[in-house]
Amino acid sequence: MPAPPVERLIQHLARLPGLGPRSARRAALHLIQRKEAALTPLARALAEVEASVRVCGTCGNIDARDPCDICRDAERDPASICVVEQVGDLWAFERAGVFRGRYHVLGGVLSALDGVRPEDLSIEALVARAGDAAVTEVVIATNATLDGQTTAHYLAERLAATGVKVTRLAHGMPVGGELDYLDDGTLATALRLRRPLDGR
Amino acid sequence: MPAPPVERLIQHLARLPGLGPRSARRAALHLIQRKEAALTPLARALAEVEASVRVCGTCGNIDARDPCDICRDAERDPASICVVEQVGDLWAFERAGVFRGRYHVLGGVLSALDGVRPEDLSIEALVARAGDAAVTEVVIATNATLDGQTTAHYLAERLAATGVKVTRLAHGMPVGGELDYLDDGTLATALRLRRPLDGR
Repeated sequence: MPAPPVERLIQHLARLPGLGPRSARRAALHLIQRKEAALTPLARALAEVEASVRVCGTCGNIDARDPCDICRDAERDPASICVVEQVGDLWAFERAGVFRGRYHVLGGVLSALDGVRPEDLSIEALVARAGDAAVTEVVIATNATLDGQTTAHYLAERLAATGVKVTRLAHGMPVGGELDYLDDGTLATALRLRRPLDGR
Repeated sequence: MPAPPVERLIQHLARLPGLGPRSARRAALHLIQRKEAALTPLARALAEVEASVRVCGTCGNIDARDPCDICRDAERDPASICVVEQVGDLWAFERAGVFRGRYHVLGGVLSALDGVRPEDLSIEALVARAGDAAVTEVVIATNATLDGQTTAHYLAERLAATGVKVTRLAHGMPVGGELDYLDDGTLATALRLRRPLDGR
C-alpha cells in the first residue's frame, strides 16, 4: 500500500481522462522516481496554469488573457464565428490554421442520455454574438456524432431569427481516406453528397 | 494554439507513461476547466509528495519515511525477502496481502536490449541483505518475461554464495483462467509443471 500522500496523488491522477487506476499508479511512480526531471516541472507547470490561465468571457477559449488573443486579434475576420464543442476542437482548427474568423466554444453538446440541456451550454451567448451586425456567418463545427448533429440542428433553429448565414462542415471521405476502410455511414454520406467532378 | 503555460502543462503531462500528446491535451483541458475540483487538488498532492516522499534506503520502497514502514514493521518476518522489479509490484503484493516478509526493489531488470547491466540495479544491496544471518529465504518475484527470467537466474547465481534458500513464484494457469484463452507458453509451462491432484 502506498503512503497516504502517494495514494492521494494516484487518486487525483486517476481522475484525469485517459488514465485509470493502474496507469495512475505507473504515472505516480514515474513522477516520484524522477523528482527533478518530472515531478517538480509538472508541479510548476500546474501552478503557472493555476495562476495565469482563464476562460475567455467572449468565446470560451482558454488563454492567459480575457478576452483571449483570438478575440482581441484585429487581423481576424469579425464576420465569421466557428462554433465548436470544446476548446480542444478550437486548438485543432488553430493547428490546421484553416480558419481566420473567431470562435465560440459551446462547452459540450446536447445529450438526452447525459442530461445536457440547452441551458447547460453557451448557446444564449452565441445567439447574442450572432445578433451583432458585424457577424454574417456562423460555421457550426460540432462533431459528426448523433449528439453533435442534433446540436447543430438546434443551433441552426435558434440562430434563424438573427438572419445570420448558418453553415456546417462538409461530410464525406477524409482526405487520403481509402474506400475499403470507410465506415458505412461515411460511405453512404459521401455518395449522397457527391459533386460534379469539375465542381468547386 | 494553447497559451504558453497551457502548452508547457500539456508537454509535461504528455511525458507521463500512458499519456500521449492527444490525451495530454484532453487531460490539461480537464484540469483547466475544473480548477477547484481537479487542478488545485492535483497541484497540492504533487507538492505534498515532493515534500514528503522518499525512497527507502534499505529496500527501495517509496514511503514518507526512510527506512519505510514495511522495513520498520517488527511484525513482519525478517527471514524472508521478496525481490520485485518495481515499487508497483511491491504494491501489488501488499494489495493482495499475501506476503508477510520484507521486500527488495531491483529498480528494473537486466536487459541487453535496453543496456541495463547488473550495476544499474540494486543487486549488491540485495546480496548484502541476503548475507544477514536472520535471512533464510529470498523469493524472486520478477515478471514472467524473458528479461525477468534472465534476471531471476542471474540473482540465483549471485545469491548462491550466501547459502540462503532462493525460490521463485510458481508459473502456470492463472486462477480463474480458461484454457482456451491461455497463450501457448503458459499452457506448455502449466503442462510441464503439472502436479498430482492430491498434492499440496
